Amino acid sequence: MKTYNIFTNEADSLPSGKADFLLAASVTLTCEIEGITQAGIPGMIPLTPTLDAEFIINERVYSLGELAETPTGVPTPAIITRAVHNLTPFSSIEILDLGLSKIPQNSTCQSFGILPSDSIASGANIDAKAVFEKGMKAGRTYELKGNYLILGESTPSGTTTATATALALGYECRDDFSSSFLHVPNNIKDETINKALSLINDEMSNFLKLSHVSDNMLIFCAGFLLEASRRFHVVLAGGTQMAACLLVADKLREDVLMRVKSENITLATTAWVANDEHSNIAHILSFLSYKPHAVYTTFSFANASIPVLKKYDEGEAKEGVGAGAALGYAYANGVENKKLLETIEFLLYSI
Amino acid sequence: MKTYNIFTNEADSLPSGKADFLLAASVTLTCEIEGITQAGIPGMIPLTPTLDAEFIINERVYSLGELAETPTGVPTPAIITRAVHNLTPFSSIEILDLGLSKIPQNSTCQSFGILPSDSIASGANIDAKAVFEKGMKAGRTYELKGNYLILGESTPSGTTTATATALALGYECRDDFSSSFLHVPNNIKDETINKALSLINDEMSNFLKLSHVSDNMLIFCAGFLLEASRRFHVVLAGGTQMAACLLVADKLREDVLMRVKSENITLATTAWVANDEHSNIAHILSFLSYKPHAVYTTFSFANASIPVLKKYDEGEAKEGVGAGAALGYAYANGVENKKLLETIEFLLYSI
Repeated sequence: MKTYNIFTNEADSLPSGKADFLLAASVTLTCEIEGITQAGIPGMIPLTPTLDAEFIINERVYSLGELAETPTGVPTPAIITRAVHNLTPFSSIEILDLGLSKIPQNSTCQSFGILPSDSIASGANIDAKAVFEKGMKAGRTYELKGNYLILGESTPSGTTTATATALALGYECRDDFSSSFLHVPNNIKDETINKALSLINDEMSNFLKLSHVSDNMLIFCAGFLLEASRRFHVVLAGGTQMAACLLVADKLREDVLMRVKSENITLATTAWVANDEHSNIAHILSFLSYKPHAVYTTFSFANASIPVLKKYDEGEAKEGVGAGAALGYAYANGVENKKLLETIEFLLYSI
Repeated sequence: MKTYNIFTNEADSLPSGKADFLLAASVTLTCEIEGITQAGIPGMIPLTPTLDAEFIINERVYSLGELAETPTGVPTPAIITRAVHNLTPFSSIEILDLGLSKIPQNSTCQSFGILPSDSIASGANIDAKAVFEKGMKAGRTYELKGNYLILGESTPSGTTTATATALALGYECRDDFSSSFLHVPNNIKDETINKALSLINDEMSNFLKLSHVSDNMLIFCAGFLLEASRRFHVVLAGGTQMAACLLVADKLREDVLMRVKSENITLATTAWVANDEHSNIAHILSFLSYKPHAVYTTFSFANASIPVLKKYDEGEAKEGVGAGAALGYAYANGVENKKLLETIEFLLYSI
C-alpha cells in the first residue's frame, strides 16, 4: 500500500520512440539448488533463459516442448514482452549469451565465450574482471537501431545471486530483494547467501568478491551500462536484480575510474515488484551515489479470462525478461490494457 | 496502464496525525431510475447512505437486515473505511444528513433540514443557494478534534448527477466520470444527463443551474470546503464526484467572492478510480483554476480469500464512503496491507 499523485508526470515515463530490446540471458548453477527458484520447470531450470530467448524472438520455443512456467503453471513474463512486441514492435530483439546451457535456436544471439557460472554456495567461479570488460566493450560497440535501448534479463535464481552480490559489496539490503515466489523460501535463499558470503573477506577486491558470489548477468550488464549510457539512453529492464546491477556499476566505476552518466539511465519494472510488500526496490536504489530515474508501469491481470494469469496479481513471477520495461514501452506508445491482455491471452492459447 | 516513479514522494501522502471523518450522506431520487446505479440493493437504493452511515459508526446496520452491496454481491466500500477505523481510529466519525430517506440509527448525525432531491431527469428541485450557504456555515463552525478532516460521501447515482453538474457549469468532461459498474450503462446515464441539461439555459445563474441538475452533497460540500479549508486541512474523500465538488466550489467562489485556499485541500481516492480506463479524474481536475493536490492509495484484493472482494480489482464499486482517503490514512499511519485485508474479511464474515 502506497500513496501516489494522481497526475502522471511525463518525466516518469520511458523515453519516446522506438527501442531496441536486448536480453541478457544467463545461467548460474545456483538455480539447481532445490527449491531456490520457481522460474522454470523443475529439473530444467537452466533451460529457462534459452526458452525465454527463443520465445521473444520467434513467438515459439524449440529447445523444449513448452514455454517456461512456474510449478504452479504461471507462464514466464516473456509472454508480456512478446505481446508488447506484437502490438508496438521493438526496433530489434537480440540475445546476449552470458553463459547459457543451450544456445537459443533461430535467434540472433551474440556470444562472448562466457560459460554458465557455478553455484554461489561453493563459489561462482567467474572471472569477474574479464566479464565486466566484455560488457564494457559490448556497450561501447553496440549499434543502436531505434531511439534507445531496453536491456532485460533472464537469470533463474538471480535474486539470490543479486542479494549475495549487494551484500558482498557492502550494501545492507538483505531483506529488500524480490522473488518469483508468492511464499518465499527464505531459509534456502538465506543459507545459500550465507555460504556464498563465507567465501569472501574484506581484503578481497570488488572483482574478486564478485567472482565468488555474483552472476555473469549482473557483472556484464554493469559494464555494458557504464559504456552504452555514454552514447544513448539505456533502460535497465527489471526489478531488484537490475537494481543490484546499478549497485555493481556504481561500485565498479571506482575501479575503472568512470562516471555513471545517470541522466541516460532508467530502471523500469512492474507494479508487482514496485508494490511488493516482501521486497523494497526503493531501498536498494537508495544506496546509489546518485538519485536514479526509476519507474514502474501499472498493469494487472484482474480482468484476465485465463485464471492462472491472475497469480501475477497475487505476487507470483512478478518480473523478468524485461516485462516491466516492455509495459512502459507499450504505455509510451499508446497500447491499451485491454488490447495487451487480449494479445497475451492469444499467445498463451496458441502455444 | 500508467507509468509512475518508484520513489514515493512524501508530499503525495495525506497529512500526518489523526483525522476526523465526516460522511456527507445524501439521496438524489435520480438513483431510482432503473439500471442507473448499482450502489445498493435494487428497490432499496435510497437506503444505501443510511446503511453506510450506520455501518461506519456502529460496525453493524439497523435500517435493513444487511449491508449495502451491488446486485453482484460486492459489498459497499464502507467496509474498507470501517476496517481502517478499527486499525487506526479516526478522532471522530459523524454523519451529515444532506437529504436522507431514513435517519441512521445509533449514529451521531447532524441535520440541516435538507430533503432528498428529486431526479435530475425532471429537475432536482434543490434550493442550491440555501444548501450552499448551509454548507458554508457548517464549514465555518465545525469543531476539529484531530489534526485534519476527511470528508467522504455516500450518494447513489452521484456520478450521474456529478456529470450533469460539471457539464451545466461549462466544464467539458462528459466522458471523464467513473461509475460503480464494471460495464457502465452509458445510455441510461447519458439519457438522464441530457434530460437534466435540457432543463437549463445559459441565462440562468450558476445556483439556478445547480438547483435543476445537481445533488445536495456536491453543493453542500462545496460550501463546506471553502469555509473549512480556511481554518484547517480538508481531505475530500472520493473519486470523480469529489473532483466535481471541487469544480462546483471553484465556480461558486466567484458568486460569493471567496478564494479557494487550495494549499489546505487534498483530494484522495482509490487506485481503482485513479487507474480506471473508463474515466479520467485527472482530466476533470485539470479544469480547476489551480493545480490541486490529488492522490490515490494502492490497495488490492488480489490476495483476498473472499472471492467477491476481487471484483473491486476488476472494476466494480471502486470508491465511496471515503474508502480511498481511509486507505491513505491507513498508509500514513503505518497500517499494513495484510492486516487491513484480514480486518475487512473479518468484518464481512461477522455481519
